[in-house]
Amino acid sequence: MHPALFHWKRLEQVVTEVLVQAGARHEHASLVAESLIHADLRGIESHGLARLPIYIQRIEAGLIELNDEPVVWKQEGATALVDGKNHLGAVVGVAALEEAIKLSRQMGIGLVGVRHSNHFGSCSYYAERAITEGKILIVLSNAPEAMAPTGGIRPFFGTNPIAAGIPAGEEPSFLLDMATSVAARGKIALAVKKGESIPADWAIDANGKETTDPTKALLGSLLPIGGAKGYGLAMFIDILCGLLTGAATGPHVKSLYDNWHDPQNVGHLFLTVDIERFMPLPDFCANMDAYIREVKSVPRKEGVSDIFIPGEIESRKKLERMENGIPFDPNLTKELSQLCRTYGVDLQAACYLP
Amino acid sequence: MHPALFHWKRLEQVVTEVLVQAGARHEHASLVAESLIHADLRGIESHGLARLPIYIQRIEAGLIELNDEPVVWKQEGATALVDGKNHLGAVVGVAALEEAIKLSRQMGIGLVGVRHSNHFGSCSYYAERAITEGKILIVLSNAPEAMAPTGGIRPFFGTNPIAAGIPAGEEPSFLLDMATSVAARGKIALAVKKGESIPADWAIDANGKETTDPTKALLGSLLPIGGAKGYGLAMFIDILCGLLTGAATGPHVKSLYDNWHDPQNVGHLFLTVDIERFMPLPDFCANMDAYIREVKSVPRKEGVSDIFIPGEIESRKKLERMENGIPFDPNLTKELSQLCRTYGVDLQAACYLP
Repeated sequence: MHPALFHWKRLEQVVTEVLVQAGARHEHASLVAESLIHADLRGIESHGLARLPIYIQRIEAGLIELNDEPVVWKQEGATALVDGKNHLGAVVGVAALEEAIKLSRQMGIGLVGVRHSNHFGSCSYYAERAITEGKILIVLSNAPEAMAPTGGIRPFFGTNPIAAGIPAGEEPSFLLDMATSVAARGKIALAVKKGESIPADWAIDANGKETTDPTKALLGSLLPIGGAKGYGLAMFIDILCGLLTGAATGPHVKSLYDNWHDPQNVGHLFLTVDIERFMPLPDFCANMDAYIREVKSVPRKEGVSDIFIPGEIESRKKLERMENGIPFDPNLTKELSQLCRTYGVDLQAACYLP
Repeated sequence: MHPALFHWKRLEQVVTEVLVQAGARHEHASLVAESLIHADLRGIESHGLARLPIYIQRIEAGLIELNDEPVVWKQEGATALVDGKNHLGAVVGVAALEEAIKLSRQMGIGLVGVRHSNHFGSCSYYAERAITEGKILIVLSNAPEAMAPTGGIRPFFGTNPIAAGIPAGEEPSFLLDMATSVAARGKIALAVKKGESIPADWAIDANGKETTDPTKALLGSLLPIGGAKGYGLAMFIDILCGLLTGAATGPHVKSLYDNWHDPQNVGHLFLTVDIERFMPLPDFCANMDAYIREVKSVPRKEGVSDIFIPGEIESRKKLERMENGIPFDPNLTKELSQLCRTYGVDLQAACYLP
């Protein structure tokens, strides 16, 4: 069966409608839809509409607060603290991003910590928004337990991502969005399904031994990039997003999928820089273009057609999928279709072919 | 031959005197001495007094400017730009750090970019200073070419380090100081000397193939941590330290050892956060203590005696070496001894045993 193809803009309308039917205000629903479809457009399926069903289930379970608004409850100088009030993560994230951008316009830089948030989608969504405003963004988030500290054998840290967006001119913007683990848990789960083995540097088993058996890996712990370096990065992100903001840290960040009693209490950190404080934006963008061209012209390994800037493959894919549609595998299409039906929304309306 | 043992404080006086004799002002000389010996105390020999001879050689070659002072030449809101005026890196680094700390006291956060700097020693020196002031520090620096972008086969990026310092209470502070490469070039050079092979994930040869032969690795390129992730981090650091500040970027950062015509024009970025904007410092430190104890109590792999917090091993070593002396290998002792003699300074004065 061929994957169904969807029109990104019509899909946004459909998903917005589902979220509205589930109780979200229109402007919130539309943000969440945009952030999820942003990921699908870029080919990051793990953070796309595959997450919509669990978002809706948590709303239905009363674990997400849709009637409140995230608030800036402490702001002084160039820093602020946002209380997400347990709203949908993307709603909280955008509120924090907008506060950070406002601060950076005033002070050259804005640092906004966030508590009481939820899974906020792909970090690159915020980076892309900041780039559109001509700002540099660094965004961090903690996440539910998945990685042990070096020497440990039980998950403690999340795959805590770090992302950065930096505008360029004609060349693709710099858009790095990376987990601090070597691989995502989802990839290991996929290997179990397919009956495949995994590379030895992805995970350890429950005894702390490196394993190529994905089933054992799921009972163990993911490995961080660069050994103790990735452990240090994940801990650093956890401290800034969780401890500094008053959100949960380490294993106290609740699972999106496995905890049906508590809000997640995820923490984030948004840092924006106003380039104009350092040089005129057009000069910076021109310098970025020259710099990116220099990186891309480094001699290549045999068989390598191109050196890609972080985010370049994804932004090419985005253009392609905006043009030709987003393919969803039959299982996801079926799941989304049922979900839409429950809320009286027609997923077919976003489909290219019946 | 046993390694000679040195008294850290007397060693600081000796090295300060050498730098003064070489033309540095006393307060500058003393800073550089302190920053180098900080690294030796922590067991990071690659960034300790092993660098003194090359610093002095560059001073003698007229490639370092000792008669000027780093200046804050652009400051507005919470950001500043420091022109290092090609002074010794640690002098420039401390000037930038102090400006960042001042800004974070006023604005909650301070972001200071630096151009026209030199090798500034170990990042952990600045992180430790910021911790002493109760601030969170993130410090980045670019560095001479050593790593290719993913898919490339010629060095372009430096091993661009990222470091972070976060204060704690009774537990050891969090002090992460990491290169974005898997291994340092110095380790590969050491393997050549010892006739040993190197792990396959350290470097590629000149054709872009992974190699365990250190001689081929030195003709090739270091590998970043986590593949494309580390490449992204190194590029991000290069853009913030070099492009945003107006310092050199990529292969235009001049080698400390191989270029005898130009200033290095290294760029750095210092970001400090005033914890008090988020919560009272004593509360934060108490929370850090509880958090660190939780991390350290994660069940351990068989044979692992302790889970260490980033920087903990080094701060233990520091205490031990402050008590018992810093050991230098005979080659370094000899080299330092000759250097001291040239400037009429007696290295023996800092030695525990004749």
